[in-house]
Amino acid sequence: MTDLADVADAVHNAVVGPVAPASRANRLRPLPLAGVSLDERGWWGQWQARNRLTTLPYGISALESAGNLDNFRRLIGESDAAYRGFAFNDTDVYKTLEAIAWVLGSHPDAELDAYVDSVAGLLAKTQQPDGYLNTYVQGTPGKVRYTHLAESHELYSAGHLFQAAIADTRSTGKRRLLDIALRFADNLVQEFGAGRRSDYDGHPEVETALVELFRLTGNQAYLELAKQFVDDRGSRIFATDGRGGSYFQDEVPVRDAKSMVGHAVRALYLEAGVVDVAAETADGELLSSSQERWHDMVSSKLYITGGVGSRHKSEGFGDPYELPPDRAYCETCAAIASIHWNWRLLLATGEAAYADLIERTVYNGFASSTGLDGTSFFYSNPLQIRDKHEASDEEESGRRLPWYGCACCPPNVMRLVATLQHYLASSDDAGVQIHQYAEAELDLRGTPVAAALSMRTRYPWFGAVDVRVTECAAAPWTLSLRVPTWAPGLRVSVNGDQIFANVEAGYVRIDRSWVAGDVVALVMDMPARITAANPRVDAIRGCVAIERGPLVYCLEAIDNPAVDLAAVSLDIDKPLELVAVPAWPDVWAIAAQGATRAAGDTASPLYVPAAHREVMETQVNLIAVPYYLWANRANGPMRIWLPSSQ
Amino acid sequence: MTDLADVADAVHNAVVGPVAPASRANRLRPLPLAGVSLDERGWWGQWQARNRLTTLPYGISALESAGNLDNFRRLIGESDAAYRGFAFNDTDVYKTLEAIAWVLGSHPDAELDAYVDSVAGLLAKTQQPDGYLNTYVQGTPGKVRYTHLAESHELYSAGHLFQAAIADTRSTGKRRLLDIALRFADNLVQEFGAGRRSDYDGHPEVETALVELFRLTGNQAYLELAKQFVDDRGSRIFATDGRGGSYFQDEVPVRDAKSMVGHAVRALYLEAGVVDVAAETADGELLSSSQERWHDMVSSKLYITGGVGSRHKSEGFGDPYELPPDRAYCETCAAIASIHWNWRLLLATGEAAYADLIERTVYNGFASSTGLDGTSFFYSNPLQIRDKHEASDEEESGRRLPWYGCACCPPNVMRLVATLQHYLASSDDAGVQIHQYAEAELDLRGTPVAAALSMRTRYPWFGAVDVRVTECAAAPWTLSLRVPTWAPGLRVSVNGDQIFANVEAGYVRIDRSWVAGDVVALVMDMPARITAANPRVDAIRGCVAIERGPLVYCLEAIDNPAVDLAAVSLDIDKPLELVAVPAWPDVWAIAAQGATRAAGDTASPLYVPAAHREVMETQVNLIAVPYYLWANRANGPMRIWLPSSQ
Repeated sequence: MTDLADVADAVHNAVVGPVAPASRANRLRPLPLAGVSLDERGWWGQWQARNRLTTLPYGISALESAGNLDNFRRLIGESDAAYRGFAFNDTDVYKTLEAIAWVLGSHPDAELDAYVDSVAGLLAKTQQPDGYLNTYVQGTPGKVRYTHLAESHELYSAGHLFQAAIADTRSTGKRRLLDIALRFADNLVQEFGAGRRSDYDGHPEVETALVELFRLTGNQAYLELAKQFVDDRGSRIFATDGRGGSYFQDEVPVRDAKSMVGHAVRALYLEAGVVDVAAETADGELLSSSQERWHDMVSSKLYITGGVGSRHKSEGFGDPYELPPDRAYCETCAAIASIHWNWRLLLATGEAAYADLIERTVYNGFASSTGLDGTSFFYSNPLQIRDKHEASDEEESGRRLPWYGCACCPPNVMRLVATLQHYLASSDDAGVQIHQYAEAELDLRGTPVAAALSMRTRYPWFGAVDVRVTECAAAPWTLSLRVPTWAPGLRVSVNGDQIFANVEAGYVRIDRSWVAGDVVALVMDMPARITAANPRVDAIRGCVAIERGPLVYCLEAIDNPAVDLAAVSLDIDKPLELVAVPAWPDVWAIAAQGATRAAGDTASPLYVPAAHREVMETQVNLIAVPYYLWANRANGPMRIWLPSSQ
Repeated sequence: MTDLADVADAVHNAVVGPVAPASRANRLRPLPLAGVSLDERGWWGQWQARNRLTTLPYGISALESAGNLDNFRRLIGESDAAYRGFAFNDTDVYKTLEAIAWVLGSHPDAELDAYVDSVAGLLAKTQQPDGYLNTYVQGTPGKVRYTHLAESHELYSAGHLFQAAIADTRSTGKRRLLDIALRFADNLVQEFGAGRRSDYDGHPEVETALVELFRLTGNQAYLELAKQFVDDRGSRIFATDGRGGSYFQDEVPVRDAKSMVGHAVRALYLEAGVVDVAAETADGELLSSSQERWHDMVSSKLYITGGVGSRHKSEGFGDPYELPPDRAYCETCAAIASIHWNWRLLLATGEAAYADLIERTVYNGFASSTGLDGTSFFYSNPLQIRDKHEASDEEESGRRLPWYGCACCPPNVMRLVATLQHYLASSDDAGVQIHQYAEAELDLRGTPVAAALSMRTRYPWFGAVDVRVTECAAAPWTLSLRVPTWAPGLRVSVNGDQIFANVEAGYVRIDRSWVAGDVVALVMDMPARITAANPRVDAIRGCVAIERGPLVYCLEAIDNPAVDLAAVSLDIDKPLELVAVPAWPDVWAIAAQGATRAAGDTASPLYVPAAHREVMETQVNLIAVPYYLWANRANGPMRIWLPSSQ
């Protein structure tokens, strides 16, 4: 049993977020979680408030209706229900607990706190004396722990328990979950630690959780086990599985792997763990290998929405440039895992590209996951849905469902949205870096900067951001503001005086002796723009997409009732204009011009001599809306990529 | 027990093929199978010989190595092996038996015949007293027959047994399999017949088998049960299955269904049964509904190879125009089932379009299934494979495998190739219709025509076909020769004299008092041509394909070593020339011209402002080979659809 001493209390005073590297190898440090608060009038804060007020209570009720908690109760005679769901159904409980814990950090709530108490009590009663806890293995006759790691998700599930416990301890200072987690973690060390076993879970996740548990407790054994899992992976222990070793990121040792392959969520959780291990062991080679795979992903396996994974059957990355918009899998959990990974890379390196991708992912492929009602979710986030869409499973549905048979995504949404403020900014010895623009208050008094900032913006609808220094000690420091790669121009002023804004590696950096009342105004040009893809992306040849600022736009049938979206093209020489649509007065839609083929082209043959050329006959006006908002007003045809009329 | 009387002997004298409609509603009749023989020097005969001499013995050995026969033996204490494979593993045995039976019809072989004896003996011993036979249900504790029809494939498996028995009786006149089949069929009638149950198998197949069993035996109960299954389907009994009713063709009653949906093989086997029932009950409305769905398929859900099914996960058709070349599923069994369906539609209607599609499918999406070695098979037949292709399962492998965990396809290939001659020609009261061109002898003395024909051609490499009348009675009759829609021009001569060749609904029809020695020469122009797709097919926008005659061509890396196939375009204004490639002196390859992008374009960003235009920098010569031959010399990149340089 790890002796925590007063670690938990000490940590609580800092209330760090999901990632709290202790390593000096990292370039940047996360801010104290409690020191950043999102204003609920802004884009980020609005979502976080909806998550807290609507999604989280809804998710808690789902743990009952979907049987997750009964899976625990049946083990101690408190339920006679049969086991329900997949082998990893415990993780829905753990992810929900993690979300609750982060919420409790900023919004203390006796009822929610009591709920955690009660579930922690249930977990404690079901945990085996040696620390093992898994309701599927414990509750299924004939199952033997740790014998089917390709399938069992036992360590994956343990990792989610650890993360819930870490969040709870950091937010509330309580040990109700932490003691359970540490017993289980010590069991893992006993079973898998150095010299004992050299296998690992089919689904990575425990690696990053173990590193964070080390950060919380200081227990090196957890870091060593995480490092062992990372180092041993690629031993091809899953090579004989029908899905092949690549599915499990197990064909090649991590340090030698050049590309992102296999099941996307597994790959991305693994990378989060890889960067965590690299950070805490100051292993530059390991970090570089993760960066090389990141470059592989962004140059050939990334959707414009920030989503990843193009194959439904294997939930996998697919081949380079295999990025079909209609069959995009883009699992919500993959977007979440990508944000986790990019944040760790950003902290490790300070490079703006990772923050850029977080922005792209948050506003598009991740924000699309959740309905404006807060109670409906996409599992898969496709970039195109046709008329008369046929689905053979929930993930293909093309609409947000209230819950899923495999409900990994909704509770994962809850835990990430509960920590959104964590991803806004960081600090180092020289100052503060603002990576994402949101209506927020930043209390930096726990950092070397010893200041407080207030950020005001109507981002992502307008490109203007004001950062006001509300408190400040005397010493000079550097305020760094990220300039997204999409911004064609910008102006920066301090207290009304325009300054020369040199964008250096993606950031405007202002070094100054700040005083309370100073205001930095960053104004980024945010014209609607038209984007094309590398022509190697076969599935969208000849197509373009409309973007503005961080937002990717799409056409939905509801805004274009007279247009057959399957027969439309965009005239890229015509202007794009900002307009409003009735449902969302605060949202910029974009008016564009294009054309459609004549009605009746569906009667023409599928294959014709090539001399027959497509003829666009009718000019049409088009309305595009932000992709993340699609399928909120009606389900139906949608597409991001539009054939260019040129 | 059905009383066959001497039906079997009478049938044996006719030796009809897989489809022998008794109905007067059909326009055309199949020829006696034994009356048509393929010359092994021709394209069709060569494959059939390879099937008989190599593939079939290989398949027989696989029934041992994959455990299929042990699944029977273990039921009677002759093996202590565990059950192996899927619930429908018996069908590999049945399809292999069917293939053997058709081979025995043309090539009597004592050893093969004794093998059928031995397996029939095994089946007889494992069959339950009331006729039921299914090694999975019988051999798995707790399984109860006919209680999980969505999954169990029990009737599907029964159907394949029936088809094996029908083939054996027709080819050999023996009842060794037929008696077993009839006992099982009678059990189905007892269990499912009118007024008893109204459910049906999740996987259609028994419908067409029952109709053929009716044709063999005259037992109306089999036809009635097939009709019942067709009529009842669409009652949404599988609607609560996670895959949805459409997967099972169970959302809409067959007569009301407008489109091909769901699992492709299921849908296509169902359609074969639908047309069979329509033919035998003279149900024009039912036939029309199947034709309507056929039009839906060919206008929006058909690959240029004749393959169907664009989704790996559901093995399904996908949405209209959802036809990705890289993720084409195009299961070999779906191509086979499509040929079954199209043949039945051709017999029912006499319309050339069905023969056209059989031609397209046989030469491309079906022929691709089997390696030239005769012992390697594609399960999925994609239209594009990229460099560094990653596969997460056998079906995605991008290369022909020696066998599959789900080995439905290889034995299915065997049984269809063993009957290829069945699909060449038909007869009616007015004469003979030749639908497919092959080196073959046609003995029509059992038909109203009372003639014998010899067909000589180097099709598909040359468009010339000679049909010689080798025997003939005095009466006049009409020789109909199909003119494929791809043929831009043709000349027809009789005994050297050119005649006016009026193509009427896809056929040249020559009405004449034929005498032995008459020769009809059909010469079809067969230029290489460039084909485009309906622009609604998003996945191949801006692309073209090279075709010649019935063959679709592709680029393989092995013929284009200096070209990056992912960065190539085809110049459609440059001539296409017939050339030879070293490996295959008898095969026409096609030389074309195109361009590639500069090396290093993979380093460019995935998404760029649309103003950045693709620049093709290097002119290249390209060599295309027939698609069906791909992956025989080396595995690697391949593509059918090529970006057009225009």
